[in-house]
Amino acid sequence: MGKCVNHPDRETSYICMKHNYYLCDDCLECHDPDIYCKFRSSCPIHFISKKGFERSDNLPEQNRESDEKCTVVFKPEDKKISIVSGTNLLDAAQKADLYINASCNGKGSCGKCRLIIESGAVKTLKTSLLSTKEKEKGYVLACQATINEDIVVKIPEETIEKKLKAAGMGEAATKKLSGLVKKIEPIVEKVKLQLDLPTLDDTVSDLDRLKRALKKQGYDISKMSTNIRVMRQLTEAVRGENFKVAVSILWKKCSSEIVAVSPLNNTKESLGLAVDLGTTSIVVYVVDMDSGKILSAASGHNSQAACGDDVINRIVSSEKDGVKKLKKMAISTINNLTKRALASINFNHKQIENIVVSGNTTMIHLLLGIKANYIRREPYIPTVSEFPMIKAGEIGLKAAYYAGVFIMPGPASYVGGDIVSGILYTGFHLFEEITLFIDIGTNGEIVLGNDEFLMTAACSAGPAFEGGGIRWGMRAEDGAIEKISLNPETFEPDCQVIGNSKPRGICGSGMIDLLSEMLLKKVIGQDGKFRIETDHPRLTIFNDEPAFIIEYAKNIDSDEDIIFTHSDIKSLVLSKAAVYAGFSILVEQVGMDFSSIDKMIITGGFGQFLDIEKAITIGLLPDIDRDKFQYLGNSSIAGAYMALLSNTYRQQTISISNAMTYIDFSSNNAFMDEFTRAQFLPHTDENLFPDVFKKII
Amino acid sequence: MGKCVNHPDRETSYICMKHNYYLCDDCLECHDPDIYCKFRSSCPIHFISKKGFERSDNLPEQNRESDEKCTVVFKPEDKKISIVSGTNLLDAAQKADLYINASCNGKGSCGKCRLIIESGAVKTLKTSLLSTKEKEKGYVLACQATINEDIVVKIPEETIEKKLKAAGMGEAATKKLSGLVKKIEPIVEKVKLQLDLPTLDDTVSDLDRLKRALKKQGYDISKMSTNIRVMRQLTEAVRGENFKVAVSILWKKCSSEIVAVSPLNNTKESLGLAVDLGTTSIVVYVVDMDSGKILSAASGHNSQAACGDDVINRIVSSEKDGVKKLKKMAISTINNLTKRALASINFNHKQIENIVVSGNTTMIHLLLGIKANYIRREPYIPTVSEFPMIKAGEIGLKAAYYAGVFIMPGPASYVGGDIVSGILYTGFHLFEEITLFIDIGTNGEIVLGNDEFLMTAACSAGPAFEGGGIRWGMRAEDGAIEKISLNPETFEPDCQVIGNSKPRGICGSGMIDLLSEMLLKKVIGQDGKFRIETDHPRLTIFNDEPAFIIEYAKNIDSDEDIIFTHSDIKSLVLSKAAVYAGFSILVEQVGMDFSSIDKMIITGGFGQFLDIEKAITIGLLPDIDRDKFQYLGNSSIAGAYMALLSNTYRQQTISISNAMTYIDFSSNNAFMDEFTRAQFLPHTDENLFPDVFKKII
Repeated sequence: MGKCVNHPDRETSYICMKHNYYLCDDCLECHDPDIYCKFRSSCPIHFISKKGFERSDNLPEQNRESDEKCTVVFKPEDKKISIVSGTNLLDAAQKADLYINASCNGKGSCGKCRLIIESGAVKTLKTSLLSTKEKEKGYVLACQATINEDIVVKIPEETIEKKLKAAGMGEAATKKLSGLVKKIEPIVEKVKLQLDLPTLDDTVSDLDRLKRALKKQGYDISKMSTNIRVMRQLTEAVRGENFKVAVSILWKKCSSEIVAVSPLNNTKESLGLAVDLGTTSIVVYVVDMDSGKILSAASGHNSQAACGDDVINRIVSSEKDGVKKLKKMAISTINNLTKRALASINFNHKQIENIVVSGNTTMIHLLLGIKANYIRREPYIPTVSEFPMIKAGEIGLKAAYYAGVFIMPGPASYVGGDIVSGILYTGFHLFEEITLFIDIGTNGEIVLGNDEFLMTAACSAGPAFEGGGIRWGMRAEDGAIEKISLNPETFEPDCQVIGNSKPRGICGSGMIDLLSEMLLKKVIGQDGKFRIETDHPRLTIFNDEPAFIIEYAKNIDSDEDIIFTHSDIKSLVLSKAAVYAGFSILVEQVGMDFSSIDKMIITGGFGQFLDIEKAITIGLLPDIDRDKFQYLGNSSIAGAYMALLSNTYRQQTISISNAMTYIDFSSNNAFMDEFTRAQFLPHTDENLFPDVFKKII
Repeated sequence: MGKCVNHPDRETSYICMKHNYYLCDDCLECHDPDIYCKFRSSCPIHFISKKGFERSDNLPEQNRESDEKCTVVFKPEDKKISIVSGTNLLDAAQKADLYINASCNGKGSCGKCRLIIESGAVKTLKTSLLSTKEKEKGYVLACQATINEDIVVKIPEETIEKKLKAAGMGEAATKKLSGLVKKIEPIVEKVKLQLDLPTLDDTVSDLDRLKRALKKQGYDISKMSTNIRVMRQLTEAVRGENFKVAVSILWKKCSSEIVAVSPLNNTKESLGLAVDLGTTSIVVYVVDMDSGKILSAASGHNSQAACGDDVINRIVSSEKDGVKKLKKMAISTINNLTKRALASINFNHKQIENIVVSGNTTMIHLLLGIKANYIRREPYIPTVSEFPMIKAGEIGLKAAYYAGVFIMPGPASYVGGDIVSGILYTGFHLFEEITLFIDIGTNGEIVLGNDEFLMTAACSAGPAFEGGGIRWGMRAEDGAIEKISLNPETFEPDCQVIGNSKPRGICGSGMIDLLSEMLLKKVIGQDGKFRIETDHPRLTIFNDEPAFIIEYAKNIDSDEDIIFTHSDIKSLVLSKAAVYAGFSILVEQVGMDFSSIDKMIITGGFGQFLDIEKAITIGLLPDIDRDKFQYLGNSSIAGAYMALLSNTYRQQTISISNAMTYIDFSSNNAFMDEFTRAQFLPHTDENLFPDVFKKII
């Protein structure tokens, strides 16, 4: 028993498991932070419910968290945090807002979360992913280490997330997008009004006075409501500049809401925020809502990456630690990017009144704190497809509290709003030409259709194209090899590295180049196995299997060569086979073959750097007329931008989403057959890749 | 400078003036308690804004609150609280949830907040409202005392608020109201549904599945939205009982919102709460939404009474201490009453899904935390008249978070939703008969009209009828003299006391009886002055003026006689004159006189105990045919009950409010003239009170 923190006169047995304080029944039941929840709201885990509280009399002593604290200093930034003894090192890093690579979400299987203990010691689990040499140097896998004393930890170069090479940004983007929206229709409209001054003969309330002025301007006030926040600000707002006001009206599906009123002289330009919420990376555009001009942009890694590379790992993580944790990570990434974008143009986040978020179904669920558990379980049902208008403050986005957040609708669990946004941008749903659209990111989503039909499917490309599961694989960041050609005689690689720095690994487009080059130069065969002599200077043995040396350790001041192993080749082949099988089956389902395709659109962060010819060589893309291929950068952000400015486009995304027919491949035998046939370079069927076979034979 | 409590790595200069902790810019700007506001939300004063935070570098040392604590024990309940040295004793009592009488809102002028210091000492200001004898006994006025050390305080019998004699409650009420509502249309409708089970061939989202089922049942889903809370609970809710669910739909003006979804087996009966939010007292009814039956009721004092008796004092208090304080008081009174009402029938507050609140314009503004500042300033403009649908959780009412709260619309600053509710109940707006309706509570609101017109006005009756400003005046609580007759010879009073206990004072109906009896028995003249000899045993001198002794001190084990002074008579005469002038002018404004009145309805907690004949005798009510008078109990709660059960009635209240024409008396010369003429017993014009003059001459 103890005293309620809010009511010292009340004895209660409910204790917070996390913070060791007591709350009485009233405080536990109450929803209003003004009334009872003084301290309760400081514990996110039981903000809404009794969850997290236990009767102290039922509580075995050892269940209470230890109070012993340890200090952790993270170098090179010298970030210092205090944590409870027994905390996992990866969790500690997250607590310090240091989001480090952890592709496998703490399973200890990816070996990415490598940190160096500089002083103090941690308790670690066994791992084969670190060499003896590395262990001697103090390397640990953060996810496998437990902190029991004060430590100093260094985050080595390779573990720090570098700047992403983001697609479709800057001046060029603005130019490309300008002209796409003819008439600007914001989500939150700002209306400037002079209200009638009140007199003894005209004593209608402030709100009625406001509505009367809106009606005079032609607004339909019969479907217009407001909320408690506005009513609380209204009294002072209308009198701030003698009844001259700016009114913000949020337009919803079939009604509108007055969401803010301020004195006219307090009013600043209204901004919009377009967000592409990718599994790997997040892009934001800050847009002037009057002109439609993109004022600023920023991109960065989704800090959820610390909970796994792909959507399945993210869902698993949300099931384990609660969806709130993942929500918080996504929100804080977006907020940090917004802050960065705004800082460069000197605007305040409260000016953001319009937001559009485009993302895949899992990302959107996690962003909103909606459980995604059944997305990964047959029959793969999302909780929401078409979202009601949300306010930024309800989910914690850095913007005006009342900013309207439009979420791109997504037709299925594995084909989401980002694809709908891409279709909106490319516009092929409006034309007769048969188009095959693919977004190769962490997932591979395919759409086939024209103005009469839209078929869609998703194939589990796996994380290989993003560097996952590949010994030296990495994302398209600074230090990634993005282009490779091999000397036909010596097989010596000629590499192009992002940021023109020393290579730190190899990204998706680099791997495709490498595989294609190895195939054409006969380093490997069509079965993906090495054909060159085992004593060739470019060949080595790693973990009992052959591996191709891309860069020698000595050239990059490292202890280890950058290599591409036989297992890496197999992973890549499986990934490309899944994508190709996806294309084939979708085309087959509508009774067509690849010759019927008029246009093939490739989008996604990855697509930007893809060498089409080489992608065809390895059998990732079909061997059709090269002129039919069209690269588009990040079509998800482009569609989000369009929806931000136009209600017509917002409504169009709903029509697109509703028109899409989803084909599930997971239980499709034809897909499995085609998948097997495609696990060859380029394919088991020569007739499908006539051009490629001419080159390799 | 200090470290942000949420981000220990950030230095910041913003310090909370109240709790002495630091917050960084991000935390100050953020709205989402999940993200940044860990500790901030524990300070109500700066939950929403930077208010209450100061840059610590700008802060003079002496501005920070002293940390020195004192303990105060309140007897007889032995409530113990810890407060900061320097706290006012009245504030301390409020902090301990002890709402004691303080009619003048801490000005030190009403002398009601009498407490006895049993141990320790307080610093007090001079007051003439306590006798030397009382001071010797340790009496202080709480509002004039400052605590600087540990003290024990006793709340004497006369300062404790007793149970109100509330009107229109219990079995009788239910009977009276049953049958008023033919078809129950709740604010939040509960629909039971079996959704289609998801399969690989039917993979629509949970929300779309739910909407599809609603559509099948005939609901218009095109105007139906939902919110983030529901989306977050939906995943588990639909799967809790294999897609059998109960859905709660909140009906708004022109759209609807899915506000809750739960597994069908978790569903309990839906309850409604009707609230009459009076300035003095608050009444709640708990209603079964299926049958319309009133299951339970409770009433009690509005704890805002500690901030003054009338609406003007409440507004002044809200301007001084912030509207949140007053909001909190009203909400917690309602919540405590609800808790009490529910406890008696063993229901949970989360079953309350429907709420209607009826109250005057000021009470409603303060309840919702809306500033009422301009209600008391010419030209007397309220902020809101017609309220949007609110959710209980948004304002902290003890109910389901999503419970729909319908606020009775009020046509003017001084004629509010309680009057509209009364009209709805009496129904005279639907008939041809000319009706004069009056609610005499803390304010006096008058409506004149029929099915063709509704004119309304308010007269400042003053607090006298509720016991304010009267030496021994009190509310209609236990111990109040509610009926008096005088022996024609000895003038010895025959008193009826509420609760049949010893008298503690006199309430409104008792005062009217007393005044009428004194006039008829010639203790006083028509001018209100005493006519009996100064040495009469029933006459005494108090503060240099004559006073009538109602009860001798010795009979009630007291130090003082219960008396009625010449000033008390004057106050009462002013009050009755204001009400009568109000009637006269309103009737005159529409070109009628009292003979045109077909019906006179008297309502309000006060009205219940009013002796019509005696009220006419003193000139409070017009001297018309007694058969035209009709007593109705608490018509505000009755109308709230009707609106709770019927959308037709809810819409009717809006029509009533819009149809009412408000006449302002504050700048009306005719009113001032009539007010002056009415300051006589019963009136200066004999022709207006023929029956009364027959009796007194």
